[in-house]
This record gives sequence, C-alpha cells and structure tokens, in this order.
Amino acid sequence: MSELSRASGVSVATIKFYRREGLLPPGVAVSATRARYDESHVRRLRMVRALVEVARLPLSVVRDVVTAIEDHSGMHEVLGTAHTALSRPGPSRPGETPTTRALKQVDGLVRRQRWRVHAGSPSRAALGRALDAYDSLGRSMPVDRLDVYAEAAHAVAAADVAGVPEDSREEAVEYAVVGTVLSEPILLALRRLAHEDVSARRFRTTRRPRD
Amino acid sequence: MSELSRASGVSVATIKFYRREGLLPPGVAVSATRARYDESHVRRLRMVRALVEVARLPLSVVRDVVTAIEDHSGMHEVLGTAHTALSRPGPSRPGETPTTRALKQVDGLVRRQRWRVHAGSPSRAALGRALDAYDSLGRSMPVDRLDVYAEAAHAVAAADVAGVPEDSREEAVEYAVVGTVLSEPILLALRRLAHEDVSARRFRTTRRPRD
Repeated sequence: MSELSRASGVSVATIKFYRREGLLPPGVAVSATRARYDESHVRRLRMVRALVEVARLPLSVVRDVVTAIEDHSGMHEVLGTAHTALSRPGPSRPGETPTTRALKQVDGLVRRQRWRVHAGSPSRAALGRALDAYDSLGRSMPVDRLDVYAEAAHAVAAADVAGVPEDSREEAVEYAVVGTVLSEPILLALRRLAHEDVSARRFRTTRRPRD
Repeated sequence: MSELSRASGVSVATIKFYRREGLLPPGVAVSATRARYDESHVRRLRMVRALVEVARLPLSVVRDVVTAIEDHSGMHEVLGTAHTALSRPGPSRPGETPTTRALKQVDGLVRRQRWRVHAGSPSRAALGRALDAYDSLGRSMPVDRLDVYAEAAHAVAAADVAGVPEDSREEAVEYAVVGTVLSEPILLALRRLAHEDVSARRFRTTRRPRD
C-alpha cells in the first residue's frame, strides 16, 4: 500500500479511507499483511482524488461514478454520470425548478442547434435556471445572441472532447471532470479579456496614436 | 424622494444610504424639505443597485465606477473601470501573482489573436491565474485548444458588446456588468450541454435505435 501511495501521490491514510468507502477495489492478497495493487488502482485513486479535491463532489456522488465504471457502462454513459455529478445542484447552486418559459427557450435552442441531449439532462435544467436568473432583472437574452453563445460553447466542447483519452474510463472521467472544472475560469477570463478588445475597437476614441 | 424610489424600484432608506456614500448626486432643492430628481438619478440608482446587488461589489469599488462617470471619461474608459472592478481579486478569488510562464502564455495568445488589451488589465492576470490552476494538476492546456477557446470567447464578447446601449454611460455600465455576471452561468451551462452532444456523437454505441 505504501508503494501504491507513492505511485498515485495519495497518502496511505486517504487510500485506507477510500477503501473503507468502497471507492477503491481491494488488491490481491499475497500474504496476511500484504496485497498487490496494479495500474488500475493507481488510475482509480487519481480519479477519485480529482473528483473529491478538484471538483469537490461529495462521496455519495463519487460513488455513483465508481458504480457506473464497475457496471461496465460504455464511455458515453460513464462520462454522462460524471457530468450529471458536476451539474447536480448543491448548497451553492440552488435546485429550483426552471420556469416553463425558460425550459421552452432551452428546448428551442436544442432543436435549432440539433444537439443530442437527454430530456432529463441536469445541464438542461441548469441552463433553464441560468436563463431565469438573467430574466429576473427584467431583461431577456435575445435568441440570436443565445445562438452565438451556443455555437461558441459547442466549439469549446468539441475541442474538449477531442482530447478525452479513450484507453481507460477512469482516465477519461478524470480528464473530463478536472478539465471542465479547471477550464471554466480560463473561459470566463478569456471572455473578459475579449470584452476589452471589442470595447477598445468599438468605443475607444483616438486620443492616442494607433496601436 | 418617494417618487424617485417608485421610479427606480430602490427603497427610500437605500436611496438615503447611497446619497450619504456619495454614489448619487443631490437633487435640485425646490424647498426646505423637497428636492427634484430626474431621469439621470433613476439611471444612476439602477446602475448602483446592479453593481451592489447583482455583481456584489464593495462600495469602495462602486465608487470608482461612479468617479469615472463623473470625471466625464469616455465610454471605453468607463466600461474598463467597471470590468476592472469585476475582475478585482476578492475573498473568493485569491490574488496571487500569476507565474511568468502563465503570463507568457497569455501574452502569446494576445499576440496571436491580435487583441487590444492593456498590459495592466486585471483580466490578463485572472487568465494567468486560471492557467496556473489548470497546470497545477500536471497538465497544460495545449496552445491550439487555448486558441479555440479564445476565438469562441471573442465571438461571445462581440455579441455582448454589440448590445451595449450607447445613450448613457450609466446604462452601458449596468448592462455590461449585469450582462457579464448573469450570462456567465448561461455560457457554462451551454458548454456542459454541448459536451453531452459531442460525447453522444463520439462515444455513444449504437445499442438503441438511431435518434
């Protein structure tokens, strides 16, 4: 187990905890006090740690992902479980039901963009809630702007998914979840930086030499 | 003042508080107990409320925006002050200095994209910090993916800025700040929904009839 700790970078105490919680399968016992672990344990540990420490998911939700993997679900189903876990409403994301109006906006968008998404997808509800919050200030996002957003988001998603490793579902989940969470601040910072460029081009008066 | 409260939807107590904090200019006194307020006061109140309640900016930062407006700065400068306020590191956004490596990545991106951004822009530092956080897990975002993100972010920013009203700087600030903050969850939810579509196309095995 100490070798497993070294190989995965996860402490022995944490490994024991994950074992007790059923998030890591047992090793093959080679004596009363020793067990053999392999690469699959290292990958599982890295994935569990990423879900717990980077995505800050509760253990019950991490267990759903582990269960999906152990049920031999296909890659799309396993990634779907991981994404569902990420979009699950939590203390910081209230889980109110979106209004019918917002869900109609979402469904219209999905139809226009011909996206293949499940009717029960939590991202669909999350988008509905985000549209409701936007509308709550008395403004509504114009349909054509929402389509620009959707096409930009799809270009980003296509680049993301192109990088998902296919060899192991654990690695794919770790990559997808960590990649999604850690790249959100990158995307938002890029948008604000781009605002500066667009604003400079539209509004800056020529008080200084051209640059 | 009660009419101003009705017109702006801001309570009299809050209006008095903003007056004391210097965020709202005085009305024109018409008697010892009455003052006249006009449309510009209504616009200012709506903007201040949006910065305080939606963007949750501290009053000292709201004052910077008000000062920029009262200094008769141009639209780009006023929007820049508002954006700086939004990107200011706060309790939830640690303000560490980005690594030189991350700033080089940012500068390379700005050069490749030919964006006009100020070297001191807080979005530049925010992007650097986001890249550092991504790299801290031992992975680095490939340059070509970062460029895909940047182009998508720019398309979104162009659609955003196209909608900025030009008549009043208060309305422009309110629009830009509220629009940026409230549309971030929309963009992130769209990306996750798009992930589902891209994953379905790439990974879904044909166990069910084509849809």
